[in-house]
Formats: sequence, C-alpha cells, structure tokens
Amino acid sequence: MPGALTLGEIVARLGGRLAGDPATVIRQVGSLDKAGDGQISFLSGKKNVSKLAATRAAAVILAAENEKRTRLPRIVCEAPYAYFARVSQLFNPVATQAPGIHASAVVSEKAVLGERVSIGAGCVVGEGVAIGDDSCLYPRVVVYPGCSLGRRVIVHSGAVIGADGFGIAPEAGRWVKIPQIGAVRIGDDVEIGANTTIDRGALDDTVLEEGVKLDNLVQIAHNVRVGAHTAIAGCAGVAGSADIGGHCTIGGAAVILGHLKIADHVHISAGTLISRSILKPGTYTGIYPFDEHASWTRSAASLRRKGKRDG
Amino acid sequence: MPGALTLGEIVARLGGRLAGDPATVIRQVGSLDKAGDGQISFLSGKKNVSKLAATRAAAVILAAENEKRTRLPRIVCEAPYAYFARVSQLFNPVATQAPGIHASAVVSEKAVLGERVSIGAGCVVGEGVAIGDDSCLYPRVVVYPGCSLGRRVIVHSGAVIGADGFGIAPEAGRWVKIPQIGAVRIGDDVEIGANTTIDRGALDDTVLEEGVKLDNLVQIAHNVRVGAHTAIAGCAGVAGSADIGGHCTIGGAAVILGHLKIADHVHISAGTLISRSILKPGTYTGIYPFDEHASWTRSAASLRRKGKRDG
Amino acid sequence: MPGALTLGEIVARLGGRLAGDPATVIRQVGSLDKAGDGQISFLSGKKNVSKLAATRAAAVILAAENEKRTRLPRIVCEAPYAYFARVSQLFNPVATQAPGIHASAVVSEKAVLGERVSIGAGCVVGEGVAIGDDSCLYPRVVVYPGCSLGRRVIVHSGAVIGADGFGIAPEAGRWVKIPQIGAVRIGDDVEIGANTTIDRGALDDTVLEEGVKLDNLVQIAHNVRVGAHTAIAGCAGVAGSADIGGHCTIGGAAVILGHLKIADHVHISAGTLISRSILKPGTYTGIYPFDEHASWTRSAASLRRKGKRDG
Repeated sequence: MPGALTLGEIVARLGGRLAGDPATVIRQVGSLDKAGDGQISFLSGKKNVSKLAATRAAAVILAAENEKRTRLPRIVCEAPYAYFARVSQLFNPVATQAPGIHASAVVSEKAVLGERVSIGAGCVVGEGVAIGDDSCLYPRVVVYPGCSLGRRVIVHSGAVIGADGFGIAPEAGRWVKIPQIGAVRIGDDVEIGANTTIDRGALDDTVLEEGVKLDNLVQIAHNVRVGAHTAIAGCAGVAGSADIGGHCTIGGAAVILGHLKIADHVHISAGTLISRSILKPGTYTGIYPFDEHASWTRSAASLRRKGKRDG
Repeated sequence: MPGALTLGEIVARLGGRLAGDPATVIRQVGSLDKAGDGQISFLSGKKNVSKLAATRAAAVILAAENEKRTRLPRIVCEAPYAYFARVSQLFNPVATQAPGIHASAVVSEKAVLGERVSIGAGCVVGEGVAIGDDSCLYPRVVVYPGCSLGRRVIVHSGAVIGADGFGIAPEAGRWVKIPQIGAVRIGDDVEIGANTTIDRGALDDTVLEEGVKLDNLVQIAHNVRVGAHTAIAGCAGVAGSADIGGHCTIGGAAVILGHLKIADHVHISAGTLISRSILKPGTYTGIYPFDEHASWTRSAASLRRKGKRDG
Repeated sequence: MPGALTLGEIVARLGGRLAGDPATVIRQVGSLDKAGDGQISFLSGKKNVSKLAATRAAAVILAAENEKRTRLPRIVCEAPYAYFARVSQLFNPVATQAPGIHASAVVSEKAVLGERVSIGAGCVVGEGVAIGDDSCLYPRVVVYPGCSLGRRVIVHSGAVIGADGFGIAPEAGRWVKIPQIGAVRIGDDVEIGANTTIDRGALDDTVLEEGVKLDNLVQIAHNVRVGAHTAIAGCAGVAGSADIGGHCTIGGAAVILGHLKIADHVHISAGTLISRSILKPGTYTGIYPFDEHASWTRSAASLRRKGKRDG
C-alpha cells in the first residue's frame, strides 16, 4: 500500500478528470470537515455543499455539476462516493487483519481453508466448513459445521453462521424440535456485520449470493435466499424461507416475514414490516409517523376507533 | 441412530396409519421440492399441495384430508408437521455437538454440570452455575455466575445468559447503577438462539419455564418470566419484569413493554409493540401496513393531521 | 464491602432522614415482595403501595409523601430509587469480576490498560486500544484496534466495539467497500450491554460521551455521537452519523435514522422510529396501537385507503 500518491497518479489508476495541479500529494482520505494537508475529500449530492467552501482538504472528488463550486485541485467523475471509496482503498486495507489462523482459534481439521484466509482470535470453525481465498473472519466468529463461505468474504466479530433455524412443530401443547439438516452457503464478496446471525437451513440450505452486504445484528432465518448485491442494514430481520431478490436495499430494523418473495431492485425503508410478497421494483414504506407524545396519543386513538367502528 | 428404517418400522415407533408398501426404505427427510430416493417428506396445510404431485420423495406424511392426493407410500396422521419432526429426530441428532467440555472452554470449578453435558469451544461458565443432564452449549456461550439451566437445554453460539439487567436510577442528571443481584433460572427443554441475551434479575430471578423456545437475537430483560412452552421469534424484545404466560407465541421483532402481564395462550404478531397487559387469550396485532412509498406518505400525513386536529 | 450496616450507619453515609430504630441491622436489599429479615426495600411512586402493607422487609426507603403508609423502620428521602441503588452498592459490587487479565483473553502488547482493569475470559483487545482505570470487560468482549475506553467503563459479554461501519458505495450494480478508518471513543462511566455493537467511524470517530448507558443488543452505527448521560434501551438502533444529545432516553427497539440531530433532554418512546431531527426537548412517540387482530385488520385497511384516496 503506497504511503502517498499524486492526484495525477490517482487519476491514472482510477480514471476521472483532473482539474488543478496533478503533482498535489495525497496521503489519506478525510471528511470535508476534518480533512487537512495531504488529504482528499469528496462531495456527493447537495447536502454538504456549504462545507465545501470551508474545507481545508488538499483536494476533492466531485461531480461535474459541482465542479465550479471550488478552486481546490479536484477529480471530476460520475459517482464521487464510489470513487472516494476506491481512493480510500488505495491507502487503506479493506480487511485489516493479517492472513493466518490465530493460535486461540479452534478450526476443525476437516475444514478446508483457501489461500491467505485470516481467522481471528477465538473463532470457531466447524467440521466440513469451506472458506474461500482471501476471506477474513474477525475475532470470535462461529461457523457451524458444513457451512461454506466464498472468496473475499469478511465476517465481523460475534457473527454466528449456521446455528439451528427456529424449527419447532406444535404437538399437544409442547414443541417438537425439527433437526436443522441444511447448511449455509455464502457467495464471494459478501460482508457480514458484527453479531449478525445466519441460520442453517431446515432441510435445504440458507443462501447468500455474491456481493451481499449485511450490517450488524441482522437476523437471517433458515432457508432464506438473499439475492446478489442486496444490502441489509442493521437490526433488520428476515424470517424463514423468504426469497429476496438481487440489488435490493433493506433499511435498518425492517422485517420481512416468512415465505415471501421480494423481486429484484426493491427498496424497503427502515422500520418497515413487509407482510406480503413484492413483485414490482420500487420503494416500499410502512412507518408510524412519530410526533410529540400528546399528538400521537390522539392519532393512535383515532386509529383504534377506526378498528372498532368499521367492523 | 439408525442408517435406515422401513415405513413399517417408523409407524411401529411413532404411530399413524400406513398406506402403501411398508417395506419402503427411508434414510433421511427432505422437502417436497428436493427429496429423492430414500427420503420422506410431508404436507402440512394446503399451501404446498401443488408440490405434492411433482415430488420425487419415496414417501410422504400427510393428514387424512389430503390422503387421496398422492399414490406415494404415505403415513396418515393428525399433525403431519410434528410427525415429520419426530421422523427427522430418528435420523438426525437434536443437538449435534458431542458431550464433554471443549479444551478451550472456561468452566468454573464451582459450576455443577450434569451427565452428558456438552460445552463447546470458547464457552465461559461462571461460578455457581448449574447445568442439567444432556444440555448442550454450542461454542462461545457465556453463562454468568449463579445462573441455572435445566435438563436438555440447548443454547446456541453467542448467547449471553445472566449479564446485568439495565438497572439505573436517575440522580441529579446522572445514572446510578443498581447492582443486579438476582440470577437467571432456565427450565428443562428450553432452547435459546444465537446471540440471544437473557439478563439476570435486579433483586429476584429472571425465569424461563420449561419448554420455552427463543430464536436468535432475542432480548429478555431482568425479572421477566416466560411461561412454559412459550415460543419467541427472532429480534423480539421483552422489557423488565414483564410476566408472559405459557403456550404463547410472540412474533419476530415484537416488543413487550415492562411490568406487563400477558395471559396464557396469547399470540402476538410479528412487529407488534405491546403497551398494556393482555388478560384474554387471542391474537393481537399492531403493524403499520406497508405500501408504495408515495401512498405511505399520504396515509402518514393523514394520521399526523389526526394527531393535530383532534386535540 | 461490609457484611452488615445499621440503618443509622446507612443514613450517616448516604443522607436522608431516619424514622424508627437506628440499630436495625441491614445485610442486603430486596424487593417488597420477597425481602425478609435483614433486608431493606424501597417504594418509588404509587404503583407498589399495596405491596408496602404486606412486606416483611426489615426497613424501607420511601418519599415523604408515603412515609405514613408504614410503621416499619424507614429512610425518607427525595429519590428513593436512586437511594436504594446507593444502598445496594454498599452491599454489592457494581462490577463482579476481579481485576486482572484472564489467561484466555487475547490482549495486544500494544494495548494500554489502566489500573485495576478487569479483562474477562475470551476477550480480544486489539492493537493500540486504551482502557482506563477500573474498567471491566466481561467475558468475550471484542475491542477492535485503535479504540479507547474511559475509566470505570463496564462492557458486558459479547459486545463488539469498533467493527467496521456499514460503509458501501454503489457502483455499476455492485457495492464498493469504504475502508472504515475512524475509531470508537468511549468516555468515563459508560456501561455497554451484552451483544451490543458500536461501529468504528468511517473517517472520523464514533463517540459515546461520559455516563452513557447502553442496554443489550443495541446497534450504534459509524460516526454517531451519543451525548453524556444518555440511556438507550435494548434492541434500539442508531444509524450512521446521528448526533444525539445529552440526558436523553431512548426506549427499547426505537430507531434513529442517519444524519439526524437530537437535542438534549429528548425522550423517545419504545418502538418509535425517528425520521427527522428533533430540536426541542420533550417526549416523542410513534407506535401503531395494537389491538385484537380483527380490529387491527380494519384500522389498517382504513389507513391503506387513506394512502390511495388522498393522492
């Protein structure tokens, strides 16, 4: 990883159009607020336009429409946020843990690990697990037996992959446990957040396709499929056998009930509970609008009356 | 565990009525979609009737009302799903981890473990903990000092039993911590999902009665009681001192506020927040109906106006 | 820690007015329901007045307005609940784990630990981490490299501090990871619940100011600031770059969206999603009122019609 690059070198590597001195030296990325000498920042959308004038960054990445707003050395491109991500990757590792198996990790002799895999302290990797090249498990990840992870997968601390799904059948007032004999299959380039849980399948497998990104404290139940390049934010839950398409975004604390089908390119707002299948791309929302407590009391009472009256 | 059983042998063990060749050999269970030679599947309710015609399973478990829908060898019974669970248990262990204490587990010398207990890698079991016969802690479970687990309890990875409850008292703009001196008592046949947390009591104990089933990422606060055979799905939260009856089901991401009383046989829908006690059995729901974003914007604005206007 | 104190000694240490025999011996605290010989209980508010008559506690802490309701030896004070907390602290340790580093913990040689720090079994403390005097990490806490914790911080099992924030930028239908190069800075007297996750900053740091209290399974995303003495209950989530003031309370399972500003002294009810900034102190709520399922069906249908009709 280079200690420094000139703007000219960055553009040579990543494309975009350069305005200003190509010899400007960049050593790190930073926010418009805090960046200083040797740091490059970015402007995406209009929200932070006011910060642009005041920034002390050495250079900035922005879209053509904002180009005239600054005299700083700048890189003009179509997707400044993604470009900024690429620049940051030039200076910073994507996974910060070195390859190798930490002495305190417990890895089954019957697990198959690819090249340059990193297994952090206190991880537990079960029998028959397969982990692809360049994947990184941060400390204290558990992968239950029989699960597989693709290449370049990143799993953050505390995540649990392959615990039993919640499979119980009622019988005379008690619950009978259904052995969970499927596994979890995770594709390439998936990232899984801290303390997220992904259950093994009841019969068939639970599947996360390539490029899926899960934030922290997400629950993926048994036999769910999450399609390629779908991103799910923190505290969201997906119930059993839900089939979620590719290129979706699911907001924080959203819930998707079981056995539903969600099409590709569906966007679900934070805090929304999805109770039936969605077959058409678009943005879907269901949030009670918050208000001062007294106002809420009235609107809720009105709603409750509707439930009684219209029956 | 047998490698194979005939349908006749299964019915001899578990009951039900057999139709078709009793010599049909079964080696494993499977879904209607994927089951093949040597596998038995099941049909529960009407949802998967269409899959029945196409299945390549060797046999199927179903209710009398569906018996005529197939010519496959079949077991006819009243609760096909529970029967299927029982059959699966014949071929598959309920807990897959062998008895014994993993070398990397940290178990207090002052903990008392029953017969055939299994303690996985990286578990931490504190002083004075009691764990009953045939219980299984998967890797990386923590049981704080003084807590007790019954027999045949299964705890999945990352669960934390007995951490301090959220006991803080306001005093001149700061919080004073209230020592949490109760413990957690867990009955027989309880199952606890991955990364679920169950807090110790503030003064008295937090109690999970026998047969309670908790999914992943469930939060049980201090001094809660969960009655026998109640099941709580993923991401649900129960606040302090709530008293939940037996034979309840609580849907995913539901929330039960503190100090409430929930009767036996209450069913709470996913995503529902319970803000007052429920003394009558039944099903209770409170979910904002999701819609396309523009429609939601209008319904939410209408509701907000109600809050202002009716005041 | 004393084995016993008289009421007179307690009042001498903590203040308040004593009524009844100052020689009454107290050895422990207890609830009104369960307290017996040698135990002191408390009455806060009116809710448990009926329990006061029946209690077998040796003494009770209460406010002047309730003083006449009992003939038991009693301590009269302005904030009985906080006073009770202080009394409990006299008899019980606030953190129950002894100072020192457990043999199974993995602590970087480049971490800096203060005096009397306690690091439990299976903890992982990364390079460059700083932990202040008298802090206690219960078993299986992970602190990623570069994060800092103040003095008297308590972190419960399974918490993960400093995992990568959910920083991804869209580019041609895929996600590009943004290296998360900030850290987490935690002030003095913070307590963090079991399996809670606090992400490191994308560029700048994520900050929890002094006296912040987080319950279990709380998600704090990258670059959030939580102001001093704010308390956040279980299962709540705070999205990226939210700026939460001091002395706030956030109820269980509440959600605060990203980039919002919440003023000091704001109280957010459980289960409420905050979708815009709150600049005025007060209590804010947004919860769909639950009802019997059939009533809910009608109220939800009415709301859905509003979305269609008012368009």
